[in-house]
Amino acid sequence: MGRWEPDARGRLERAALELYGERGFEQTTVAEIARRAGLTERTFFRHFADKREVLFGGTARLRDLLAEAAEKAPASASPIEAVGAGLQAGAGMLGEHHERARRRHAIIADHAELRERELIKMAALADALAGALRRRGVPDLTASLAAEAGIAAFRVAFERWVADPGRPDLARLVRQALDELKAVTADG
Amino acid sequence: MGRWEPDARGRLERAALELYGERGFEQTTVAEIARRAGLTERTFFRHFADKREVLFGGTARLRDLLAEAAEKAPASASPIEAVGAGLQAGAGMLGEHHERARRRHAIIADHAELRERELIKMAALADALAGALRRRGVPDLTASLAAEAGIAAFRVAFERWVADPGRPDLARLVRQALDELKAVTADG
Repeated sequence: MGRWEPDARGRLERAALELYGERGFEQTTVAEIARRAGLTERTFFRHFADKREVLFGGTARLRDLLAEAAEKAPASASPIEAVGAGLQAGAGMLGEHHERARRRHAIIADHAELRERELIKMAALADALAGALRRRGVPDLTASLAAEAGIAAFRVAFERWVADPGRPDLARLVRQALDELKAVTADG
Repeated sequence: MGRWEPDARGRLERAALELYGERGFEQTTVAEIARRAGLTERTFFRHFADKREVLFGGTARLRDLLAEAAEKAPASASPIEAVGAGLQAGAGMLGEHHERARRRHAIIADHAELRERELIKMAALADALAGALRRRGVPDLTASLAAEAGIAAFRVAFERWVADPGRPDLARLVRQALDELKAVTADG
């Protein structure tokens, strides 16, 4: 890291989301993002590999948070309860940033390439949750099933959350989606 | 279409899977696939856009089959039952080709790029199932939840099926995975 720039990463993220919203993702250059943030391109590339990465920069942290919370759930928790604990931790991290999530979601929804990247991210979250369950002694395929079903519930909750300008509580929407998942699968 | 080649598509698929298994996916060229199949490169490109497409050529048919079977399930079927009907139709289509599925799966598992493509395919199947449910009058997010949870069960069943050289019954494994999904989510 070179010269210290106060909250350079956050400034670059905000500038990028603004520009992607105003001009479109393709039309925005790294130089423009850096300029809007009052920083250099060099600083941009210290924080992000490319302009796509700005939208996915939080993935590793989110993944680790989910897995850690699922793994540390009480020993008495069932697999889906441990997944729920992971998802609640994720909701805690994301839930603070409703407006940013809404902007990001709108940009991703508009681009096939970014939607694919988002799918891959979701699969990585499910894999991390399944890994946490396996470390709790849950058999392999049960772990995958609980983790993937849980991520499906999380996605539904997240979609509701970003669609609602009234800034509802993401953690509550996640609990609700897990209850709906239970109801929907019980009906088989 | 030019000159008629008896089962050119099937011959190209078999040749490609053999070569990907023998030499690796990257190392195999379209010219080699065509030669092994006793056909020309021109014939290859009449059937497939590129060598990756050989592994994903059945996606559109599978997607349509799943969606149609889900949509045509009895009116009394719950959303997850309609999804189950779709998945059973899919199992019927795939279940005949155990050895091919095993080879294909091994190649995909070895390549990050192909795994990503497979994820995108699975997401397309879930979208198609969710669309079928919406046409049955199921609310939007319930439809997504049932479809994605169903696809998670299908993936687990499929993994078990390809992992087992004894050629178990895919349709039975799908029913079993849906039962496990119900048990795992009920435990929350």
